[in-house]
Amino acid sequence: MDIQSKQLEEIKALMALFEAPGTLDGGGVTRLGYGPVEDEMHRLFRDWGERNGFIAYTDAVGNSFLENDAATLAAEAGRDCILVGSHLDSVIRGGRYDGVAGVAAGMACLKWLAEQGVNIPLRVAAFRCEESAAFGRSTTGSGLVTGTIDGDDIAAFTGPDGRTLAETFAEAGYDLHPQPIKGISAYFELHIEQGKVLESMGREVGIVEAIAGPRRFRIVIDGQADHSGATPMDMRSDALCAAADLILDVEKIGLSEARFRSVATVGIVKSHPNVMNVIPGWVELGVDTRGVNPDSIGRMEQRLRISAENTARERGVQITMARQYEDLPRAMSPRLMDALEQSAKDLGVSSFRMMSGAGHDALSFAELVPTAMLFIPCRGGISHNAAEYTSDEAICTGAAVLCRTLSRHQTGE
Amino acid sequence: MDIQSKQLEEIKALMALFEAPGTLDGGGVTRLGYGPVEDEMHRLFRDWGERNGFIAYTDAVGNSFLENDAATLAAEAGRDCILVGSHLDSVIRGGRYDGVAGVAAGMACLKWLAEQGVNIPLRVAAFRCEESAAFGRSTTGSGLVTGTIDGDDIAAFTGPDGRTLAETFAEAGYDLHPQPIKGISAYFELHIEQGKVLESMGREVGIVEAIAGPRRFRIVIDGQADHSGATPMDMRSDALCAAADLILDVEKIGLSEARFRSVATVGIVKSHPNVMNVIPGWVELGVDTRGVNPDSIGRMEQRLRISAENTARERGVQITMARQYEDLPRAMSPRLMDALEQSAKDLGVSSFRMMSGAGHDALSFAELVPTAMLFIPCRGGISHNAAEYTSDEAICTGAAVLCRTLSRHQTGE
Repeated sequence: MDIQSKQLEEIKALMALFEAPGTLDGGGVTRLGYGPVEDEMHRLFRDWGERNGFIAYTDAVGNSFLENDAATLAAEAGRDCILVGSHLDSVIRGGRYDGVAGVAAGMACLKWLAEQGVNIPLRVAAFRCEESAAFGRSTTGSGLVTGTIDGDDIAAFTGPDGRTLAETFAEAGYDLHPQPIKGISAYFELHIEQGKVLESMGREVGIVEAIAGPRRFRIVIDGQADHSGATPMDMRSDALCAAADLILDVEKIGLSEARFRSVATVGIVKSHPNVMNVIPGWVELGVDTRGVNPDSIGRMEQRLRISAENTARERGVQITMARQYEDLPRAMSPRLMDALEQSAKDLGVSSFRMMSGAGHDALSFAELVPTAMLFIPCRGGISHNAAEYTSDEAICTGAAVLCRTLSRHQTGE
Repeated sequence: MDIQSKQLEEIKALMALFEAPGTLDGGGVTRLGYGPVEDEMHRLFRDWGERNGFIAYTDAVGNSFLENDAATLAAEAGRDCILVGSHLDSVIRGGRYDGVAGVAAGMACLKWLAEQGVNIPLRVAAFRCEESAAFGRSTTGSGLVTGTIDGDDIAAFTGPDGRTLAETFAEAGYDLHPQPIKGISAYFELHIEQGKVLESMGREVGIVEAIAGPRRFRIVIDGQADHSGATPMDMRSDALCAAADLILDVEKIGLSEARFRSVATVGIVKSHPNVMNVIPGWVELGVDTRGVNPDSIGRMEQRLRISAENTARERGVQITMARQYEDLPRAMSPRLMDALEQSAKDLGVSSFRMMSGAGHDALSFAELVPTAMLFIPCRGGISHNAAEYTSDEAICTGAAVLCRTLSRHQTGE
């Protein structure tokens, strides 16, 4: 598409607005959820809104909102508005685009729609503490107000300064049991892809069909720790060799389910005693499987169990496998996906339907209201890292697709 | 064999003599080289010798010796004696048999030969600091007096209390540059196997043909750390999957060289960032290969290099491989092996010719004089552990084979 230079200047200004807080020597930022740097990011967000004629407010858990007059009027009349959101916190030594690009796109939409005289009720949200880096729980702010997270479950989680989330909330005057968010007819979120699919395919935006559900396993292999010099090859129960079998099986399982967009990864390996002259007697693996197709996720688990049983039998080791964590995949709204795709087409923007392997604030809304996500490419797929980068042009292109979609959205639909 | 009950009582008494020092709650012992517990073990050794009519002395690095009158007379006449030795130190939370069984067997031989009126010149050694647990260098005491270790190379090594070996030696009045040991015509060492070959084959003693030489490698794999959810299976450079290929190749290489009694082990694996939601981008492996056949050791290294190159090419990762450490295999004396085997046969003791995968004080003597090692089984092959165990009967059987061999040995040969 041809980006209008005025739109691009708006995006540049918005990204510059959020540049300073938490900046580290050598690039990157640290903006931990519910910390002072995130507070400053939210202040910048609300101040910009007020300067530009929108209503700014904070909810009971610290999420910040801007809304236009149409949204205020709609709420008074008992009608719903559209919500566009993302987050302003980061991981430790993270990048400047994860979350911020989506909030900036929402802010741009608010302004552009006003300038175009399009009077749809629109709210833009900056959610708190989307990253698990601060308190060990992701999508905290959006999860609490949508009810996907129960405040009691995370009250005792401790943050970087050792205080619990309950203590942090009490000091800030927040409420771990807020009233549920209301008056929303649809949720949109723009986000950097955090992968390299769009970049490698040369597409400008990704239309997310579903957010993958992770299913995670802890596998423990008990072999026999023997002297590596004194134990002939045929008298060994090498737990690390058994682990290698499983690591390659996990890869095969992921590859065979790739056509369903599933992935399988061994992210963690711990070996004991892990010294040069002893055959490893004990190995732990952490396996992360994800997908958008429940059947495929189920097959991966089943094949992993068979692989563990076969390896145990063939190698004479003991293997235990436990499911550690599971979140269900969440489908995005087909109607909103079509609307985003049509807008991209109208603007001459190349798009690609894909899954989101990572979780996002959109997860919190997917069961509540029709929800959609728009991805923009990021360089090399790098994220959660100081080297994270996406161009202002890419953000602007995504914001333009989002803005056109909003302008055509019938809230009563 | 039928063990004479008098011989067995002697072995029981000798093992009991060394029982107390360094005993830990819950079993096992800690007797670090050049520490106070090892000092006490050596004092017990020398005191027993003096009580039993042998000459006891300490050399310039703290090794303790007992010798019979024949040895003293031989030395005065410029003739050689036979040396039987092992060590009295242990690893941290080690067992009671590693080293001690060999010293006790030597002491028993001294006494039995005297009782039998066999007047061969015999010295029994308790070497210092055979384990690398204390100062990071194995066979310290025997290596210094045989010249296989240069004191300058280890002077700066630090012990468990943070002091260097040089400082420890200065305080004890030892000399890091001692006169070389002299007047030895042959070296024998009895030792627990520290493996499970004898146990699994049901043999009473092992006659060591060679002590394996370790050749060790550090392999580093550089892949790409990407988001485990957002990166499709076909866009990955997973360093841990590449490591799994190599771990299984190392096992295959060891198996294919097993007929030459070689072994190959991946003892160390370190993965980064080693978290659930990131594809491992960097993995380090520590590979230990050992053998008694130099051609086989060379082939293993060559095949390992080819495997690393193939894996790097096939998986699109970078792999570097560096040789970290090498020690040459040491052959034992064929004449002494035959002598041990004949003695076993004479006594009705079942024997098996095998390699030693672990290093021993005998390594220090193998280049200097004809050297032989006699292994006795230990339960489950377990060593360097509180669960280490061998029976007094097994020690007695080994000591009897050794004693018969010594009684027939012609020092002038």
